[in-house]
Amino acid sequence: MCISPALLPYYQVKGRIVVLIDIFRASSAICSALFAGVKEIIPVESIEEALDYKNKGYLVAAERLGAVVDGFDFGNSPYAFMEESLRGQTVVLSTTNCTSALHQVENEAAEIVLGAFSNISALAEYLLDRNEDVLLLCAGWKNRVNMEDTMFAGALAEKLNGSFKMKDDSARMAIHFFDEGRINLREFLWESSHSQRLRHLNIEKDILYCLQNDQAPVIPYYDGRAIVPK
Amino acid sequence: MCISPALLPYYQVKGRIVVLIDIFRASSAICSALFAGVKEIIPVESIEEALDYKNKGYLVAAERLGAVVDGFDFGNSPYAFMEESLRGQTVVLSTTNCTSALHQVENEAAEIVLGAFSNISALAEYLLDRNEDVLLLCAGWKNRVNMEDTMFAGALAEKLNGSFKMKDDSARMAIHFFDEGRINLREFLWESSHSQRLRHLNIEKDILYCLQNDQAPVIPYYDGRAIVPK
Repeated sequence: MCISPALLPYYQVKGRIVVLIDIFRASSAICSALFAGVKEIIPVESIEEALDYKNKGYLVAAERLGAVVDGFDFGNSPYAFMEESLRGQTVVLSTTNCTSALHQVENEAAEIVLGAFSNISALAEYLLDRNEDVLLLCAGWKNRVNMEDTMFAGALAEKLNGSFKMKDDSARMAIHFFDEGRINLREFLWESSHSQRLRHLNIEKDILYCLQNDQAPVIPYYDGRAIVPK
Repeated sequence: MCISPALLPYYQVKGRIVVLIDIFRASSAICSALFAGVKEIIPVESIEEALDYKNKGYLVAAERLGAVVDGFDFGNSPYAFMEESLRGQTVVLSTTNCTSALHQVENEAAEIVLGAFSNISALAEYLLDRNEDVLLLCAGWKNRVNMEDTMFAGALAEKLNGSFKMKDDSARMAIHFFDEGRINLREFLWESSHSQRLRHLNIEKDILYCLQNDQAPVIPYYDGRAIVPK
């Protein structure tokens, strides 16, 4: 388990299934989107790339610091992606931490899937079925560790524990950390830096959604260009 | 709180008091040594440097994978440093993770001190008195996060909490992590990767020592060449 993309050089990516985690809110929103019938999500890192797509006529979700960027269609609220009008559509999503982590592993990973509380049971089942080496990768916040991604990684590792062997201390710590917070994740994460950043934006409803299990049982899979349901 | 030296680029070191943490066993052994009357510890990273000092007539402690390296005086067991014969002496200590982390911050840090359970209360008191910005830096294991260093960082952060403002999620997570393990640290850490590496070496006595509070109430301080008591 790699709890920050900055630690990737110290982990084996080659040949592994990488589970990319960005709970608030990219991986949660992508699960919702694909489950609600969005055809595919094209992840981009910068506002400039997002703008290029926008100019080509794509639907583009772009957000910085929790707010929709001027001129774009919507931000990364999971609810925005559930709109009826998006069914069957391609959506471009600008998300810094998640896309950056994705690009760092795309050349070496055997496969990249996305993980969120929204798809945790389906994902655990998928990984147990596949029974191959897995690397859980937290997108974090500007290369720093964050609570919500680590906590989800712990929740997923707990489901895999027993069938998989844990290779390092991060997974053990994350499982303990999740175990301490599991009774009330929202309260536990209230003090987290990202919650603090998002608090004034009135997106409590999004946060509660992102912490609920199994709202969108789908396996988002990166095909080299877009994220599609497996 | 920086839980791996690989994350240092994302933290402000400049002007801060850095607390360097390497529980098994460098920072613990250094506290013991200075408390027992060793004059100073010169930290070196490689066996080659250690050998240079040895050839110049220094007392040199060098260890790899938990065993004393052939030709050196002793390893890094805290007990080895408490010998009567070492009082007033200079000792050279070869320790990879700890020395490497130290060199990464020595140019920018306002001050570097070492932290271990052996000096936790004295160190907390010192930092509270100083009341300056502090960065807790875990030496980790080859740039990966480890349980024992993170757990100590959590224990120390808990003592400082209230008087210091926590800047990121690592400190919050480490405090929770310590809180879960505090009742029986040894049992809690039994599964850690480093415990597993050390287990066959019969150094259980060392490990128990390294997890006891306040056995060596001293503030080891790096003066640019050697670690001396403050």
